[in-house]
Amino acid sequence: MWKPDRDDARPLYVQIADYLEQRIAYGDFPPGSVLPSERKLAVQLQVNRSTIIAAFGELRAMGIVESHVGRGTRVSMMKWGAAPRHTPNWSRYAEGGQFLPNLPFMRRIREALAERPGLIDMASGELAGDLAPTEEIATLLKEHDYTAYLGYDNPQGSLPLRQAVAEYLLRHRGIRTTESSILITSGSQQSLYLITQCLLSPGEAVAIEDPSYCYSLPLFQSAGLRLFRLPVDEGGVNPEDILELYRKHRIKAVFLNPNYQNPTGAVLSDERRKRVLELAGELGLPIIEDDPFSLTSYGDMPPSPLKSIDQAGTVLYIGSFSKIAASGLRVGWMVAPHAIVERLADARQQMDFGLSILPQLVAGQFLRSEHFAPHLDRLRTSLQFKRDLLIEAMDKELRGLVEFEAPSGGLHLWCRLLPEVPEGKLLEESIAAGTVFVPGSVYGSDKGYARFTFARPKEEDIAPGVACFARALRSLI
Amino acid sequence: MWKPDRDDARPLYVQIADYLEQRIAYGDFPPGSVLPSERKLAVQLQVNRSTIIAAFGELRAMGIVESHVGRGTRVSMMKWGAAPRHTPNWSRYAEGGQFLPNLPFMRRIREALAERPGLIDMASGELAGDLAPTEEIATLLKEHDYTAYLGYDNPQGSLPLRQAVAEYLLRHRGIRTTESSILITSGSQQSLYLITQCLLSPGEAVAIEDPSYCYSLPLFQSAGLRLFRLPVDEGGVNPEDILELYRKHRIKAVFLNPNYQNPTGAVLSDERRKRVLELAGELGLPIIEDDPFSLTSYGDMPPSPLKSIDQAGTVLYIGSFSKIAASGLRVGWMVAPHAIVERLADARQQMDFGLSILPQLVAGQFLRSEHFAPHLDRLRTSLQFKRDLLIEAMDKELRGLVEFEAPSGGLHLWCRLLPEVPEGKLLEESIAAGTVFVPGSVYGSDKGYARFTFARPKEEDIAPGVACFARALRSLI
Repeated sequence: MWKPDRDDARPLYVQIADYLEQRIAYGDFPPGSVLPSERKLAVQLQVNRSTIIAAFGELRAMGIVESHVGRGTRVSMMKWGAAPRHTPNWSRYAEGGQFLPNLPFMRRIREALAERPGLIDMASGELAGDLAPTEEIATLLKEHDYTAYLGYDNPQGSLPLRQAVAEYLLRHRGIRTTESSILITSGSQQSLYLITQCLLSPGEAVAIEDPSYCYSLPLFQSAGLRLFRLPVDEGGVNPEDILELYRKHRIKAVFLNPNYQNPTGAVLSDERRKRVLELAGELGLPIIEDDPFSLTSYGDMPPSPLKSIDQAGTVLYIGSFSKIAASGLRVGWMVAPHAIVERLADARQQMDFGLSILPQLVAGQFLRSEHFAPHLDRLRTSLQFKRDLLIEAMDKELRGLVEFEAPSGGLHLWCRLLPEVPEGKLLEESIAAGTVFVPGSVYGSDKGYARFTFARPKEEDIAPGVACFARALRSLI
Repeated sequence: MWKPDRDDARPLYVQIADYLEQRIAYGDFPPGSVLPSERKLAVQLQVNRSTIIAAFGELRAMGIVESHVGRGTRVSMMKWGAAPRHTPNWSRYAEGGQFLPNLPFMRRIREALAERPGLIDMASGELAGDLAPTEEIATLLKEHDYTAYLGYDNPQGSLPLRQAVAEYLLRHRGIRTTESSILITSGSQQSLYLITQCLLSPGEAVAIEDPSYCYSLPLFQSAGLRLFRLPVDEGGVNPEDILELYRKHRIKAVFLNPNYQNPTGAVLSDERRKRVLELAGELGLPIIEDDPFSLTSYGDMPPSPLKSIDQAGTVLYIGSFSKIAASGLRVGWMVAPHAIVERLADARQQMDFGLSILPQLVAGQFLRSEHFAPHLDRLRTSLQFKRDLLIEAMDKELRGLVEFEAPSGGLHLWCRLLPEVPEGKLLEESIAAGTVFVPGSVYGSDKGYARFTFARPKEEDIAPGVACFARALRSLI
């Protein structure tokens, strides 16, 4: 992002006025649109607010913008051309469509992270850069020949990658499948998007875990689905709750994350797994099994996925590279019956024409390479170490203020906050103190919870991050 | 795709029965689902239909499938486990959702291409493999260092790529913009998808060209939009038609492909460009300008895009790598006002969490490299040569049967077919004769048109492809 140059002879406010004038002239802020607030620009450009006020004054003097108390600073309608022009009311268009915006807390967190490079990130559900197999992938890129691969590919995804994923699923997850049952997606996110958009109809009921990552995704509401809750305890969801929701609401699908559930870290017990599949078979009810975290297990491998013991063919299985290797590769997969794979592959052609071929080739090579097993070992050891760092810091800084169960896999720690404090304020105070976390309500939970990601911050930032959070929390008690 | 092994000692039908049994056991064809037809399997596996009949007989004898006249061959419900299980009715789920399937002709073409490797492809709207900068990109992959780039990235797309695209747009398309107004997308397809899903609401009216690529995309209907037509002649659309549609239907947006329009090849005249922008400014009406083909121009560069002379900020500009470099990279871009870029980037996070970082880095490097300009020169020369090959073959094989205007850019030739023949039959006869084209109705045109892509087939396949088509057409006269 552009910043004013402090070595430039021109005053900062003149540089900023020039920069804004350029963006206005290029149509980035069309006539009639509102400029970002003085406060926001001051943070973004790292200058005092008075500098922004002076820059706006310059633009106003040139007739480029107009300011009205309480309505912000707008680009003038009259500046461009002799006759007044009517720019489309872009902000109305931005509010249109069927697609709901991301939750305000999620947008606030992203905005804060973009604006403040030093902020300690315990919110983003991803691995730190040094946990990704960066060197290994750079090596694969150097070693392999990438010629003759650049046209449109199979709508289900590249064949070598689907074959590698089928081998991976057999070896690491006990799932027997073939490349023809696999759809390659842009991570689990796109698998969920395709399922909610293409297999379920507006008004239909589905069951999701409570709390659940799915609440943080407006895509369920965007698809017009009615959501019903399956409370999660330390053994996962209770299968009888599924039966009850089916009887009451004719739910059409159940979304489950059985291993190291996001956000609670719960593992669905063996007994409940059997019963879930039995019920799904009796009711003819699809189970959408999201399994991003299993290979992060710190100790023994977690229970096998539902899909591996699914005799009635009720399970759609979703996996991805994001939490075990690199989220930025955007490689995920779905295992589903033929009719479903065909339908989703067809629909996806209209949305984005499939995934880029490069990351598919690299991901397939990585899965089959000698780098994969050592990478997983290193990842598991590091995650366990970082989890312990987080717990240690919590014990030191927040004793008596939080409660949690130590997870045995995954990237997150789910905490109950004992003092009653308003979530929004707590997030703002934390940002001011130097760290971000995710407020529990994002996951649809009762108030008084928070999710901390120990995978994302650097090791040396975990204790300071917790200290920042503790300061924020104590300031509100 | 799996094929029986003719060197294997086991008879072909046994190998096929084993293969199908495995796919059934893995849940690819769950209990109750219908297997592909004998005819289809015979084509896919390249065996006689009698071999498939024998394989189905094997499976029936084992109780794995059941056949009923007129209802096809189904996987038995009773085979798996002692008690009957209820598999979800997956085919009902596959018919669910708001998202319409691709058009039957498009699916038929894709299916035929997948089944018959020797088919001459004059249907797919993409470059032949040897026109893509494959060597150049392989070189970039070898030369550059790809470490430290693997986390989630900016929701608008990678900054170096957006900067490279901004430079590219200024140099090659006369568009002045900054990286903050650019959204990186998975090709033009995703730009259109985001616009129809996120900026327009169900029931709203939009204007599209007639004929138009947009008719081939059920995404407009999936979004619940009402489509109104702007007839295209050799100078493009008539601006006064836009005014009339606005008055009658309050259209909310106009989708235009001003340079080498797909499928007609028409170029919007200078005079009409000015009038389109004047009207859009008067009405406050957004113009969605799709510009995939401009750099394929065989002679002089085509007129500058609407966006480059858009003073009122009415134009959303869409471009991509697909038709000028490599469709399989899946890299496109949109230039739009700030509010729109922010909104679409936010929505896209929920759909797929953005594009993979690897193709973004490579695309940015390629745009800035010394390889780009020579690649474009080679591309233009080759496309013109292939266009001439197609026209020569048409003149030889189809004299008096087709009419067309030679395009001065783009990948396609749009033909009027003089004899009246049914489109579906013509396509099937062509497939049988050895080539595919796209029937004109896919683009919403009147009957009696066809689109031939000269960019996709190899040079030496163009004349034989036309000969196949001519045979098919003559067989129906």
